[in-house]
Amino acid sequence: MRPGGRTARVRAAVLEAGGDILAEQGFHGLDLADVARRAEVGKTTVYRRWGTVDGLVADLLTDMAEQSLPRTDTGSLEEDLLANARLVCRTLTDPRQGPLFKAVIAAATGDARTAAALHRFYAVRVAQWAPCVQEAVERGELPEGTDAAETVRAVSAPLYYRLLTTDAPLDDAAARQAAAAAIAAARAGAFVRTPL
Amino acid sequence: MRPGGRTARVRAAVLEAGGDILAEQGFHGLDLADVARRAEVGKTTVYRRWGTVDGLVADLLTDMAEQSLPRTDTGSLEEDLLANARLVCRTLTDPRQGPLFKAVIAAATGDARTAAALHRFYAVRVAQWAPCVQEAVERGELPEGTDAAETVRAVSAPLYYRLLTTDAPLDDAAARQAAAAAIAAARAGAFVRTPL
Repeated sequence: MRPGGRTARVRAAVLEAGGDILAEQGFHGLDLADVARRAEVGKTTVYRRWGTVDGLVADLLTDMAEQSLPRTDTGSLEEDLLANARLVCRTLTDPRQGPLFKAVIAAATGDARTAAALHRFYAVRVAQWAPCVQEAVERGELPEGTDAAETVRAVSAPLYYRLLTTDAPLDDAAARQAAAAAIAAARAGAFVRTPL
Repeated sequence: MRPGGRTARVRAAVLEAGGDILAEQGFHGLDLADVARRAEVGKTTVYRRWGTVDGLVADLLTDMAEQSLPRTDTGSLEEDLLANARLVCRTLTDPRQGPLFKAVIAAATGDARTAAALHRFYAVRVAQWAPCVQEAVERGELPEGTDAAETVRAVSAPLYYRLLTTDAPLDDAAARQAAAAAIAAARAGAFVRTPL
């Protein structure tokens, strides 16, 4: 249980229940009254604090960003980005996290507030991993001016695209290919920021 | 109007109305009775032929695959894949097509039949463009054994990821970066099929 007294405990219980329902039933299965019942929290409290299912999903994404693990720091660009790719694969194939991510991506396509929360979540994750790339630039392993965030996004992009548009598995070969392709593109200067 | 008599005309009208509603209101706004009204087709016909909204979305994706434009063929890998990246950006930023693609991606996260239809749609699109890469392999511009489909998917992946997870625009710089990154990765051998 996370610290912070009753308010924090209520939030943790509600977000866990909301995440469970999203993972099990998708965004359409989400109903604040069900969330309250499952979290064993008063319905009025849930409606007063989160208002709508979109509000709850936005808060869940804020919490996911706050709880997210620190980056790997091996001192090697190859190892760091491979660890990142494997983490993405592990997350997207996890029995709870995988459906949960699909559900929030789906929810974000239809609601601007959810989309903004989803964008913030990914901005936080990308910023956490960007130092791996920035340090490689400083070590002279990647061209000067390489956009670290764009390089990190290049690792995730093919894995999410594979998840959403194909039946192909998110296995270790997929993780290796994603990391290797991003590094090759970065070395070739594909992510060097162009002057304005 | 497409040829094929009354059945084909009914299908065209229903799929157009369904696509319009998806683009305007997202997957949750889709209701077969509304589609029938908008298409000026009997409700019974729509229910008998498509059954459910998921069935209608699956058929819409089949139609989108059948109607999709042939690939560009300039004889240059750089030009062909840049044309592909620009087509993806144009589609995803189109006022009707953009929301329509988001809606079908969202629908696919919650329904296996829609997901299968979405996967078939992308498999058709990727197969249409794969010869650009295969011919570059044959000209010796890319390593022997390069997976042409995976290279084509590498062009689209960062554009879809940008659309779904960021506020960044799908502009010409994004298209150029996507094509350049995919080609650099392919040249470095990142998409060479590994032996089983």
